[in-house]
Amino acid sequence: MKPVDWSSLFGQGAERIQASTIRELLKLTQRPGILSFAGGLPAPELFPKEEAAEAAAKLLRERGEVALQYGPTEGYAPLRAFVGAWLGVDPEEVLITTGSQQALDLLGKVFLEEGSPVLLEAPSYLGAIQAFRAYGPRFLTVPTGEEGPDLEALREALLRERPRFLYLIPSFQNPASGLMPLAKRQKLLELVTEAGVVVVEDDAYRELYFGERRLPSLFELARSAGYEGVIYLSSFSKILAPGLRVAFAVAPKEALKKLVQAKQGVDLHTPTLNQMLVLELLKEGLPARLERVRRVYREKAQAMLEALDSAMPQGVRYTRPQGGMFVWMELPEGVSSEELFQKAIAEGVAFVPGGPFFANGGGENTLRLSYATMDRARIQEGVKRLARALESLLPLKAR
Amino acid sequence: MKPVDWSSLFGQGAERIQASTIRELLKLTQRPGILSFAGGLPAPELFPKEEAAEAAAKLLRERGEVALQYGPTEGYAPLRAFVGAWLGVDPEEVLITTGSQQALDLLGKVFLEEGSPVLLEAPSYLGAIQAFRAYGPRFLTVPTGEEGPDLEALREALLRERPRFLYLIPSFQNPASGLMPLAKRQKLLELVTEAGVVVVEDDAYRELYFGERRLPSLFELARSAGYEGVIYLSSFSKILAPGLRVAFAVAPKEALKKLVQAKQGVDLHTPTLNQMLVLELLKEGLPARLERVRRVYREKAQAMLEALDSAMPQGVRYTRPQGGMFVWMELPEGVSSEELFQKAIAEGVAFVPGGPFFANGGGENTLRLSYATMDRARIQEGVKRLARALESLLPLKAR
Repeated sequence: MKPVDWSSLFGQGAERIQASTIRELLKLTQRPGILSFAGGLPAPELFPKEEAAEAAAKLLRERGEVALQYGPTEGYAPLRAFVGAWLGVDPEEVLITTGSQQALDLLGKVFLEEGSPVLLEAPSYLGAIQAFRAYGPRFLTVPTGEEGPDLEALREALLRERPRFLYLIPSFQNPASGLMPLAKRQKLLELVTEAGVVVVEDDAYRELYFGERRLPSLFELARSAGYEGVIYLSSFSKILAPGLRVAFAVAPKEALKKLVQAKQGVDLHTPTLNQMLVLELLKEGLPARLERVRRVYREKAQAMLEALDSAMPQGVRYTRPQGGMFVWMELPEGVSSEELFQKAIAEGVAFVPGGPFFANGGGENTLRLSYATMDRARIQEGVKRLARALESLLPLKAR
Repeated sequence: MKPVDWSSLFGQGAERIQASTIRELLKLTQRPGILSFAGGLPAPELFPKEEAAEAAAKLLRERGEVALQYGPTEGYAPLRAFVGAWLGVDPEEVLITTGSQQALDLLGKVFLEEGSPVLLEAPSYLGAIQAFRAYGPRFLTVPTGEEGPDLEALREALLRERPRFLYLIPSFQNPASGLMPLAKRQKLLELVTEAGVVVVEDDAYRELYFGERRLPSLFELARSAGYEGVIYLSSFSKILAPGLRVAFAVAPKEALKKLVQAKQGVDLHTPTLNQMLVLELLKEGLPARLERVRRVYREKAQAMLEALDSAMPQGVRYTRPQGGMFVWMELPEGVSSEELFQKAIAEGVAFVPGGPFFANGGGENTLRLSYATMDRARIQEGVKRLARALESLLPLKAR
């Protein structure tokens, strides 16, 4: 009997979804004793365990026929209505997705094919690069930083090409932690409406601002201006719990209809129980919960910045996040963050090397630090270890 | 400001995922007063509401940091271990999926591309056709019936082409309700191993047999014979609850690795809470639960067959299922089941017209009846209504 030659049977798609080296690296971060700044995991002390326990028991007992049954692909109607009211949109424009990751895959399925141009920030969210890459598009990238994407580079890119969409994370970008200022958002929208291109705005961190208030999203600004070309993604992963895998997309009906059709073939619908549970958790005490979430992340960010300020050598640059879960770091030119990673693991601390966040390569001297899961003491200790790991790598003049 | 021309931005994928007319039809089945044989929904009286309520509360209270947090893409390790022990396979060969529908999408992503041949039964599961179609393959079909696919047609197809895989539902096929006998399974495996092709065996209904015992799956037979080329799919939707969206795929490590990589980009992982909950529900009283599930469906099937035997006119043929949730019906040649559908809705009963289950067309005179959600009295009344709807359509000689 011949053994099966699997690779001869795989399609082109299989070649595109090679394992990222990053995931192999990240396995090292789970070794005992490692303090990990690597994961993008929300702080577990914020999970509403008790409320979820009570709500889940009540839902299953009293409405188990619904909670455990197949549901509509668009999502559980009362949750769609809640999101609609929350964002001020028609619930018919809301699709509940199995995490935001699914929304990214659905966008790929509907908009992308071999060779289609799609525009991303460099760096951008690894999960988006991965989801889109499976459809074989051509990535156009524009540099991004603490104030979001370089608009001049964006303008030039739009003069040359018409991407299927722009994928942007204007608030507390993952991984670069940028926050696009209001004036720049407006400027960006002018470019976008002029070119008539579509923006996919990923606003997973929308509620995790450290300042006085949330900036209006591109989506809100576009709607106010009468422009329909912004598809909005957000999630309950960062404000409730990621393990429930409940997120949402908002899009004009024509686009939403296609996304719904794509979702039918992908998982039929997001688990009913999870959607009902999220709704119950949202209905009670949301403002207080959001205050608490913001305070916890603000304190952690502060702890990390203090530790970095006192421990990092000259020549190492890092962002001062105004929200979200990440600090983005640039090592001196020529210093490899993958090399640093190996030394850091030896010292007992982990992070994510920045290279894979660049869809078209580059960024070898960058890295992402998450402060979300650790307390102040562990953050301080982790940063000390990172500084020790850095010592041997930095050129003498930069120390 | 120009309105967005969405259709100019959609990729080829979007064209392939047109809404099926069937879904539009099925909306009619939700009208009040309609007795529906249409849905493939499991019987809600079988849902373990109370057990799930208790288990969910306990899990969230005591292990909420795990249940609500991101988890590994491969699945919750103790659930993978359970499935491994249950099926007698290495847990490393098990991938937990967000419903079996997701497994079908992942198979499409890994194995199929524009024009690749894939072989299906005609008729076959609509969700599989839909999931695969998004990748633009070329469907090869072989007729199937109460004893499974036509092996002669299959043999000829394999002589002409080498499909990326054969998608088969050997037990209680959806929609044709066939059960492939043991000898035929062995014969099929001979063909398959000789040709060195891969089989995807969808065994969603594996536990819903009405006879003394379950027939060995193709997967089991192939493993015994040392053939690795069968990928096995099954689900907890039919024995616990579909709304949790927890299913699994078993594949040799090389193939599983690709499926895991594909799943990373698709939804990161299946909700952790749901996987833990399924495991808790499986751990207690599974044999008794399966007995009950089988008894309930057997009784419903019997009720439907009795009603059909007494009410159906000559010339209408239907299967006598030995398990699962469906009866498959053939109207006399030239009588359209879509036309019957309209008349049936007027009489207050619904079913699924069979045409869409044929990937390459045909089957206009066929339909699928599900007995899963109704009790005996409603099944009898529904069949009476169906008989009335049929009257006006049948040629005089057949009445």
